[in-house]
Amino acid sequence: MNFNQEMQEKISEIEAILEEFIPKEEGYQKTIMQAMNYSLLAGGKRLRPMLMVETFSMFNGLNMDILKPFMAAIEMIHTYSLVHDDLPAMDNDEYRRGRKTTHVVFGEALGILAGDGLLNYAFETALKAFDAITASTPTEELTTYRRIAKAMQTLAAKAGIYGMIGGQVIDTEEYHGVTEQERLDFMYRLKTGALMEASMMIGAILAGATDEEVNKIEYIAGNIGLAFQIKDDILDITGTPEVLGKPVLSDEKNEKVTYVTIMDLNKASERVEVISKQAVDAFEELPYQNEYLKSLIIKLINREN
Amino acid sequence: MNFNQEMQEKISEIEAILEEFIPKEEGYQKTIMQAMNYSLLAGGKRLRPMLMVETFSMFNGLNMDILKPFMAAIEMIHTYSLVHDDLPAMDNDEYRRGRKTTHVVFGEALGILAGDGLLNYAFETALKAFDAITASTPTEELTTYRRIAKAMQTLAAKAGIYGMIGGQVIDTEEYHGVTEQERLDFMYRLKTGALMEASMMIGAILAGATDEEVNKIEYIAGNIGLAFQIKDDILDITGTPEVLGKPVLSDEKNEKVTYVTIMDLNKASERVEVISKQAVDAFEELPYQNEYLKSLIIKLINREN
Repeated sequence: MNFNQEMQEKISEIEAILEEFIPKEEGYQKTIMQAMNYSLLAGGKRLRPMLMVETFSMFNGLNMDILKPFMAAIEMIHTYSLVHDDLPAMDNDEYRRGRKTTHVVFGEALGILAGDGLLNYAFETALKAFDAITASTPTEELTTYRRIAKAMQTLAAKAGIYGMIGGQVIDTEEYHGVTEQERLDFMYRLKTGALMEASMMIGAILAGATDEEVNKIEYIAGNIGLAFQIKDDILDITGTPEVLGKPVLSDEKNEKVTYVTIMDLNKASERVEVISKQAVDAFEELPYQNEYLKSLIIKLINREN
Repeated sequence: MNFNQEMQEKISEIEAILEEFIPKEEGYQKTIMQAMNYSLLAGGKRLRPMLMVETFSMFNGLNMDILKPFMAAIEMIHTYSLVHDDLPAMDNDEYRRGRKTTHVVFGEALGILAGDGLLNYAFETALKAFDAITASTPTEELTTYRRIAKAMQTLAAKAGIYGMIGGQVIDTEEYHGVTEQERLDFMYRLKTGALMEASMMIGAILAGATDEEVNKIEYIAGNIGLAFQIKDDILDITGTPEVLGKPVLSDEKNEKVTYVTIMDLNKASERVEVISKQAVDAFEELPYQNEYLKSLIIKLINREN
């Protein structure tokens, strides 16, 4: 089985888990549940839950029942951010991955509420991990409570104003006294990196990794996120709509400051390589191995779409 | 000291706690923090944290350090719901409590993001309770972990699509096959009742109340919320702008179906009394007492503004 086949199989497994946790479309609130599921089940690479479960397995995590709610939760948070990003007052996008965006199908009010619903439901879902604790001794139970509590705190911190949401605000504002590259790095680390950090850190935390190991994982994931986002800037110039599945030169059209407006393409590509190498080197120094995860990381950085 | 003086003092205490937990306005994300704090510190009765702390003290709760993060969190959730409710795509309100609404001051994009930021920060804040655990034995520590986990689950469930957000969706949709009163009751119990239930339940849970006691508290708070909301419909007809601090006859102007459009004023008032009496009777049957909380409940139901 080659990497792409393996990845496709893993995506299917993740989507089966996601379907265990999505809200049932019933009751007086049926419409919002439909809007939430419309965006949740719109496909995608399921990258964040994949990074989470692969990190969990690398650290020899055992109880999948505790991990699964967090896998669903991180995808819900990623999805709500897209739903709100697409709103008319934000990026005003009518299509995403070839489908109409949530607010176009369900109306703007429901676009706002479905995003709120998804964010709240993400926490509701992750908190179900506490109900999945099985322990044979009070000490073991206490250890598991501590891990889930730490995973919850990581999820909330990385999704919030010091994480993903924070990165979106910088996007809409102008800053002075810092170089454009400093501003972009900070923004990319928050906007894209933070949820990747959360994904891999939560996998490690729930598997029982030490604080030192979790810090290393945060560093690795942060670099992956930053490289991933710079690569995005590059692909907007060098990619083709056929391979990317979205229009190219959109940053230029929107007069956005990106890595390829502040330095030339070669320099930007070099920077992707340097940051990536730091991530891969740190990854290889870990006393654990997961060949698939390593291939996934390299694939993410060298991606063409 | 009369009731109103006592209430004012308690509001000041709650606001001091809130200020401990609000985000510092600094860093690249300063603007969103300003927008969040603008709405958080806009005054108000701080009813939900008040119900929480009074219920906590009624059940002889001791460790305020564990309760405080939840008091701040419930107010953040209430506030985010107002910020999003006021958005142009929702109720499109330009003023609230005599101040310009968040999106009017900071723009629509920041109105959306500040609401998201507040909801996420509410969970981030409540989760700080795990860091405040002090226990002299592992058994005591485990008990506290369990209580906080249950309080977190209650907070998330009551704020989400099966709670407050669910109530807002019903508001924007039409339903068939149920009477208008059934629809209104369901909507009011979710939209207004759910956060009051969460407030009192979390106070009880963190103080160590039994499941049975928590269920009774949920029943009492649910009835208070429903009575409170029906009273709101009545005051929109019988109140004066001077006493209410907001325009009257706004429901009529917006052609909204309310309790006073589906039954006459006397019948609606009778229903408030019946539901209130159920709440007060159940409250008095509890083996605990809190005279201030009892007065507060009665005041809420009989309020003129």
